[in-house]
Amino acid sequence: MEKKFWWPPLAAWPIGPRCEKPRSHGITMVFDKGMGMNNFQDLLEIAGEYIDFIKLGFGSAALYRSEMLAQKVIMARRYGVELYTGGTLTELAYWQGLFDEFLYTLRSHGIQWVEISDGTIHLSSRERRTLIHKAVEQDFKVLTEVGKKDPKKHLALPALIQQVLEDTSDGASYVIVEGRESGKDVNLYDESGTVKEEDMKMLIESLPSLDQLIWEAPLKDQQQYLIETFGPNVNLGNIPSNEVIALESLRRGLRSDTLRQA
Amino acid sequence: MEKKFWWPPLAAWPIGPRCEKPRSHGITMVFDKGMGMNNFQDLLEIAGEYIDFIKLGFGSAALYRSEMLAQKVIMARRYGVELYTGGTLTELAYWQGLFDEFLYTLRSHGIQWVEISDGTIHLSSRERRTLIHKAVEQDFKVLTEVGKKDPKKHLALPALIQQVLEDTSDGASYVIVEGRESGKDVNLYDESGTVKEEDMKMLIESLPSLDQLIWEAPLKDQQQYLIETFGPNVNLGNIPSNEVIALESLRRGLRSDTLRQA
Amino acid sequence: MEKKFWWPPLAAWPIGPRCEKPRSHGITMVFDKGMGMNNFQDLLEIAGEYIDFIKLGFGSAALYRSEMLAQKVIMARRYGVELYTGGTLTELAYWQGLFDEFLYTLRSHGIQWVEISDGTIHLSSRERRTLIHKAVEQDFKVLTEVGKKDPKKHLALPALIQQVLEDTSDGASYVIVEGRESGKDVNLYDESGTVKEEDMKMLIESLPSLDQLIWEAPLKDQQQYLIETFGPNVNLGNIPSNEVIALESLRRGLRSDTLRQA
Repeated sequence: MEKKFWWPPLAAWPIGPRCEKPRSHGITMVFDKGMGMNNFQDLLEIAGEYIDFIKLGFGSAALYRSEMLAQKVIMARRYGVELYTGGTLTELAYWQGLFDEFLYTLRSHGIQWVEISDGTIHLSSRERRTLIHKAVEQDFKVLTEVGKKDPKKHLALPALIQQVLEDTSDGASYVIVEGRESGKDVNLYDESGTVKEEDMKMLIESLPSLDQLIWEAPLKDQQQYLIETFGPNVNLGNIPSNEVIALESLRRGLRSDTLRQA
Repeated sequence: MEKKFWWPPLAAWPIGPRCEKPRSHGITMVFDKGMGMNNFQDLLEIAGEYIDFIKLGFGSAALYRSEMLAQKVIMARRYGVELYTGGTLTELAYWQGLFDEFLYTLRSHGIQWVEISDGTIHLSSRERRTLIHKAVEQDFKVLTEVGKKDPKKHLALPALIQQVLEDTSDGASYVIVEGRESGKDVNLYDESGTVKEEDMKMLIESLPSLDQLIWEAPLKDQQQYLIETFGPNVNLGNIPSNEVIALESLRRGLRSDTLRQA
Repeated sequence: MEKKFWWPPLAAWPIGPRCEKPRSHGITMVFDKGMGMNNFQDLLEIAGEYIDFIKLGFGSAALYRSEMLAQKVIMARRYGVELYTGGTLTELAYWQGLFDEFLYTLRSHGIQWVEISDGTIHLSSRERRTLIHKAVEQDFKVLTEVGKKDPKKHLALPALIQQVLEDTSDGASYVIVEGRESGKDVNLYDESGTVKEEDMKMLIESLPSLDQLIWEAPLKDQQQYLIETFGPNVNLGNIPSNEVIALESLRRGLRSDTLRQA
């Protein structure tokens, strides 16, 4: 067995223990906006330990050649990382009346997780439930997403909370709180990307548990806020691929912004 | 033949047909600000289909070792992508009285396109025409660029329009509308990078065709604006190398911001 | 011998001569926030000539597997580049009472430079001196850093100047002026990252020489300001790894922003 860390004297992470893999919380989901294969390999080799999911952003997976998609799935799994395609692709498939074909094609590429969202299209509560059930029945694990991508269609907090409760009860393993790639003007982030504290407080009080939430938090201040609020093992998503080590440093108190809390 | 897309059910791109390669419009020009060879290979492998030109930004090509430059040219061409060096290098060569030597050296490295600009130095109309003619006579294809890099030397719109007309009549294959790497405070972008709608309208009305224009549009909102205004096959340039797949997603309605227009 | 530059006519760099390696000033220090091995190799191959130090940012080095850390050290040195670990890791080691073990482990990985800082923890003048002396006695070369990472603990300029003088007299080879990864709201940068001219003027007047200072300058406008103020061979640090060629273009007048000064 290789020695895992090079720095033997480090006895404890300064801000508390960090869940190691396999883990059900302390999740890091990375946003892949079109990495090439060398880069993808690089990321897994240096940071695979710190990554749980890689999402192929937007509907970008439709731009991949078949064999390249399958290869990413296999490479990721070798490091204990699951790859899935962004919710926009699911929405497009459903909108075109091809949801079953979509699931079939995902499976034929080795993908085991599917994201169900209505960030762009509209889904009724019943449609949403049907899609979740269909995916679960076909042995997929489901991540749903709550929130609208268009700031003009902002989803009110009570509706968002209601959706979280329904999704988990319908069989979703995780519910992602939409933060977009930008982290701005969406759900609990204002136009500058700052967390709306009042909304956050109300959300925390309304949910029995936050363990199944994944916070999309592309910006460092958001990551820091969420780690300070919920601890090092908060589930975070939409992490830019070149920020994974920086985030893990934050989580473990290896960066000034969290070390100073220690 | 490999199957090109992994997602068989997708019958049509949601916001309309996209020109496939080889194409004369729907151009994507990527800004290379010093990618290493693994990265360069990565980009071509995953996104070569979606790239027409790669520009070595600024005068950075002068920092390359000869064999590495030649290697990039060959690798790119294998994917149907043409590499050229940024206009600043041409300007520097001309300023040092070495334009002919410059063309000779480009050719000896396999480069077939040359950018002629006066973003930093001053060129009279006559000098500009002479340079274009010289390059064309030596079998180069020419991209010119209009606009000043220094915001204090902002070029008035009528002068810019005049230059576009002259350049194409003088033999330029494309005219690039300067947007810099930042996309801010230059030509039709204001200090925050927002398109000046009035100027844009005047430009559109003044030109007989926009097919030969390449818009430098490094920022996502600019890309989105131009796709919404001119359709999925607008010519776009200065795309950051890690944004090519994201841009292609925008062009094909695979991203919420354009899908919602469908 | 390979011909170094592909562009034979270029007789002189437009804004003055640039120190080539090995050099004691004109230093470029790159911020590595978790590059994988292909990427790391890429950077050295294309830009090794233009890099003097690579810093593993924050305490991120503690997240590396031992053999990967050692491999980066060896690869970098082959290109004449020295790798060191961010000051936050040193601070953490000292805070946990493990400074000697820390030095021992650095050496066992081939690292020859150590950064001593108090950006997060507090060090008295005496403690600081003791750490520098210890490292020097064990044949390390020392970089110190001045400035606080937390804007609320802003270090007054006279104290900062005093520390620079003490550190160099105590044996530090270079003193780094803290700029963080963001370049904002720290030391001589205001909240938007702009240089505070008054403070800069006072600093220049107070120090006998600036040759041992390395300015952390992650933002392009900062790099440009420092090159315009101190010339192409100013020592710059915290350069994002994908900006090294862009910075070298600035240093050599190959980019509009400095070429226009020529």
